[in-house]
Amino acid sequence: IKRVAVLTSGGDAPGMNAAIRAVVRTATSQGIEVIGVRRGFSGLHRGDFITLGARDVANTLQRGGTILLSARSHTWRTPEGRARGARHLRAHDVDALIVIGGDGSFHGAHYLQEEHGIPVIGLPGTIDNDLYGTDHTIGYFTAVETALDAVDKLRDTGASHERIFVIEVMGRHAGHIALDVAVAGGAEEVFIPEDAKEVAGVLDIVKASVKKGKMGSIIIVAEGYPGGANGVAQAIQDGTGMETRVSILGHIQRGGSPVSSDRILASRLGEAAVYALMDGRSDVMIGRQNHETSYTPLADTWEKRKDVSRDLYRCAKTLSI
Amino acid sequence: IKRVAVLTSGGDAPGMNAAIRAVVRTATSQGIEVIGVRRGFSGLHRGDFITLGARDVANTLQRGGTILLSARSHTWRTPEGRARGARHLRAHDVDALIVIGGDGSFHGAHYLQEEHGIPVIGLPGTIDNDLYGTDHTIGYFTAVETALDAVDKLRDTGASHERIFVIEVMGRHAGHIALDVAVAGGAEEVFIPEDAKEVAGVLDIVKASVKKGKMGSIIIVAEGYPGGANGVAQAIQDGTGMETRVSILGHIQRGGSPVSSDRILASRLGEAAVYALMDGRSDVMIGRQNHETSYTPLADTWEKRKDVSRDLYRCAKTLSI
Amino acid sequence: IKRVAVLTSGGDAPGMNAAIRAVVRTATSQGIEVIGVRRGFSGLHRGDFITLGARDVANTLQRGGTILLSARSHTWRTPEGRARGARHLRAHDVDALIVIGGDGSFHGAHYLQEEHGIPVIGLPGTIDNDLYGTDHTIGYFTAVETALDAVDKLRDTGASHERIFVIEVMGRHAGHIALDVAVAGGAEEVFIPEDAKEVAGVLDIVKASVKKGKMGSIIIVAEGYPGGANGVAQAIQDGTGMETRVSILGHIQRGGSPVSSDRILASRLGEAAVYALMDGRSDVMIGRQNHETSYTPLADTWEKRKDVSRDLYRCAKTLSI
Amino acid sequence: IKRVAVLTSGGDAPGMNAAIRAVVRTATSQGIEVIGVRRGFSGLHRGDFITLGARDVANTLQRGGTILLSARSHTWRTPEGRARGARHLRAHDVDALIVIGGDGSFHGAHYLQEEHGIPVIGLPGTIDNDLYGTDHTIGYFTAVETALDAVDKLRDTGASHERIFVIEVMGRHAGHIALDVAVAGGAEEVFIPEDAKEVAGVLDIVKASVKKGKMGSIIIVAEGYPGGANGVAQAIQDGTGMETRVSILGHIQRGGSPVSSDRILASRLGEAAVYALMDGRSDVMIGRQNHETSYTPLADTWEKRKDVSRDLYRCAKTLSI
Repeated sequence: IKRVAVLTSGGDAPGMNAAIRAVVRTATSQGIEVIGVRRGFSGLHRGDFITLGARDVANTLQRGGTILLSARSHTWRTPEGRARGARHLRAHDVDALIVIGGDGSFHGAHYLQEEHGIPVIGLPGTIDNDLYGTDHTIGYFTAVETALDAVDKLRDTGASHERIFVIEVMGRHAGHIALDVAVAGGAEEVFIPEDAKEVAGVLDIVKASVKKGKMGSIIIVAEGYPGGANGVAQAIQDGTGMETRVSILGHIQRGGSPVSSDRILASRLGEAAVYALMDGRSDVMIGRQNHETSYTPLADTWEKRKDVSRDLYRCAKTLSI
Repeated sequence: IKRVAVLTSGGDAPGMNAAIRAVVRTATSQGIEVIGVRRGFSGLHRGDFITLGARDVANTLQRGGTILLSARSHTWRTPEGRARGARHLRAHDVDALIVIGGDGSFHGAHYLQEEHGIPVIGLPGTIDNDLYGTDHTIGYFTAVETALDAVDKLRDTGASHERIFVIEVMGRHAGHIALDVAVAGGAEEVFIPEDAKEVAGVLDIVKASVKKGKMGSIIIVAEGYPGGANGVAQAIQDGTGMETRVSILGHIQRGGSPVSSDRILASRLGEAAVYALMDGRSDVMIGRQNHETSYTPLADTWEKRKDVSRDLYRCAKTLSI
Repeated sequence: IKRVAVLTSGGDAPGMNAAIRAVVRTATSQGIEVIGVRRGFSGLHRGDFITLGARDVANTLQRGGTILLSARSHTWRTPEGRARGARHLRAHDVDALIVIGGDGSFHGAHYLQEEHGIPVIGLPGTIDNDLYGTDHTIGYFTAVETALDAVDKLRDTGASHERIFVIEVMGRHAGHIALDVAVAGGAEEVFIPEDAKEVAGVLDIVKASVKKGKMGSIIIVAEGYPGGANGVAQAIQDGTGMETRVSILGHIQRGGSPVSSDRILASRLGEAAVYALMDGRSDVMIGRQNHETSYTPLADTWEKRKDVSRDLYRCAKTLSI
Repeated sequence: IKRVAVLTSGGDAPGMNAAIRAVVRTATSQGIEVIGVRRGFSGLHRGDFITLGARDVANTLQRGGTILLSARSHTWRTPEGRARGARHLRAHDVDALIVIGGDGSFHGAHYLQEEHGIPVIGLPGTIDNDLYGTDHTIGYFTAVETALDAVDKLRDTGASHERIFVIEVMGRHAGHIALDVAVAGGAEEVFIPEDAKEVAGVLDIVKASVKKGKMGSIIIVAEGYPGGANGVAQAIQDGTGMETRVSILGHIQRGGSPVSSDRILASRLGEAAVYALMDGRSDVMIGRQNHETSYTPLADTWEKRKDVSRDLYRCAKTLSI
């Protein structure tokens, strides 16, 4: 391994820069050069490359977003598109590719390896935490913190007006953010895609909550729960006659300076990616499981599922009394 | 003056607790007792009163929301409703009433004074900053800071994806928050109710911004601009073909621990309210103008308008190149 | 089990309130009453008790500090002192005691159980993370985040003046905070009690760092490293002639609203404590290890040591080039 | 005016980048070129110049520190030093110089104008707010907010242990930060250089505070108060026998992303600086007074003093009961 390329793909996540920095500095310390591919697979397809030295990633650790930019690519989904990307990599003497993103991005990486024999490593970069093969994904901790900060603020105003706030957090297919935010934010209820419970079933909880003298209620809804926050709010309003307010937190959950846990996770994974390539590994996602580095075949990341913690789901219920 | 009542009314604003605390402690230091009215005029109408001593407001300075709660009251709009509130105040030997809220709340206070001769003082408590008679309102600085923090986060993700973000901030009738956030957040454009410019007129700016190599654009829209953020985003998308994302910040702007400027303003105003009553003033809102305490007839607060700073509006334009 | 008591002891840590709340609500949901002991063992000795219902812990989840207060107790160290505490517990029909604190506090709990047969459970509440038997302690994540926020700020000013900042973080006996902050803050060097390396050995790194064109350097020192930040700064200044600034972060690391990870950990542990007592467990600390609840004999918490992550220590070095 | 130079000098302050950006963009919009001088007067002396276009200051508005770096210069104090700086400016066809800093920096600018006829404009950039001729200085609001955040955190831990915290904030010659933080932080006492009151005189207040059942006390001390926080703490401990803790906040007050008020002030002043030069003004500091742009002869900034608000000082006392 003389030269590796790195790119970020899919929705950006806080900590992606920390991962890029770790890749660059670890590689540099091992005498390996690093090429940054800008704008994800779309840039790979067009040969949008820059060289990255140790100083180029200075002062990026604490920045949100990704200095390599990200984009969705449609051309990448065709064999021709990938062939073109592979040619660009070869033309620049790149020996391997590190992809920071979600399972969609790992798909692209996997086929590049399969079709063109270029070693690829995936690093889990997505705020949703819905990747099999790692306890946490880069960006997840920051997204939870941002959402929690918003919930704390909404509780202030909700309590002052004794209102019910229905708050939608990100998570198109998974309730990880919603569940963490619900427990940490002291929510009265949480709705996640992993559990099909109906709003009608919890109306009594909302009513009881008010009777108990609670000053305002907080209901957390994952984006992926059918109907979203608007659906839940409507059902509550219809079923209880109580005034509800909806807040959809949206894209702020993607931004911001990464919290320490994301910076540390990203630093560890970026470092491990370079060592993995040096050890001859390929077609795997590097994660952390039970405080150890783990290697998961890329295909597993889209074929297998990581469930939310059922313990924590119960805990959320117990503590909301 | 032996005993004063204080209430918070209308939308809650960060710093209301600091104002209540200042009223209570200043009054106490002058040998005046304080009654807290819970749930605004609605509570006044029902006699929902508590006594407030110096220790009861300990540890509230830094809290968002209002410990006295707030609510909308419809009964208050009738002479009968106000007569009932006046009876409750008299029954509790209350000599005067301090109302923390916006111009709608001052209306209620004004009629109470007019119809029942109870001295009233208004304190400007609203995040919108749209009150004539004071440079700033309690809660405004915190709301701007919260919105700015969101804008900084959205810029991270917007820049990474080179997207146009259209962000709606609070301000139903006024562009104060929007303008401050636009300048402080380095927005490419800002739309406020005070200026009827059309979206069509700024499409070239958006297009040019992208050509200049800007990584993503931020457009700020005040809630009260016709069509809101959704309208602006649609017009931009239609007119430029560029991908836009909308973020409506909503109620998070009301909550959170007040920033220093709001705590200090609220502390000063709460103190001044008690002294004003001791000096025999009534039917006025207390504000700060050019670093001095000012007294504005309550009626002026809804009859006159405070414009946004035209200087700053121009400055926003100059700096967005 | 009909009634349990809970106290917080030793240095306060963010998340202690979340743990108290979880104990109270879980117990309440199981028909168990909860007594709060104020001011730690000192209050236990004096019978400073209050009852805690589900509503009494409302709105405490997000608060720093401890609503039960904490204090150091000397009387507790004698058998007579403990006997007196035991009498108070019996007089109030308390069946078991939950102690939230560090290993010093667990000592007291252990002897209470041994001498008076009162079941005790320990919950790890200390920002230092230096407790055997749990991956993380309550308060640790928040302390790291607070320290990191300070490091980010110092980097701004350090870079502007191209200065060397030597920053001391908490950790009298352990380098956990220092190490996490060093990696997350992109420090050039870190000094922890677990590694006796001398400052003289790293002077070349500091000099090289400047030569590489780095704008300012950040050096993290754990409180427990011999000489502390002042010693390290002096050695650097003597050895390199470069201007250094010292910043001792101190007690701010103990305060603040707990971050999500601390709230969730505290919620889980508080819940588990009640269930553990119901299951007949005693004389154990409840922790989380590899995402599962774990039970460690209290004596192990002061007899065994938890090392810092050696991997991460190496990673800090690699990434600081 | 065809070309202006800009530099930052003295201690860095949050918002300096916003001021640089405003200078660059306003100048650019007026067809004027901008040269950035790196490392303050020291760089001016050495000709350490870079060109700054509108894109070079993109994404700097929200950054702490100064992208132009700052430094102390001794050579600058001699006529020879200044002559050399003037030669560099002339060699680069610079028509005027904008200096962002404190009164020490304005001294240098003033002599450059006097001795070499180069028009100079000063912008108030210092966290201390101790400059005559402007209501607030760039960086002040952020420093207050950072200190207040620390005070809120220390209150959590102080209250939990019922301790007295003596907190030292910046302000070598002025109590502006201390006073704002005291009011906003709800401090029991505040010591500033502007008032020579002795610690002995307030011991009763501290003792009474504890008797009133206050959970912990917060005492704020400005750096410039004789003896500093350590002196005050010692006097309190000696005089009351109560346990005190000292926290010296230090350099964290200089760093961090600027709050909105600093970004807006800096944006306005940077814009005004360019217009002032175009209008033929020189040897003045531009400030904001009562919401209007003001021009103060540079010499006034070191010859006249801005007092703290005596009103607010009284208010701090009233509200601490």
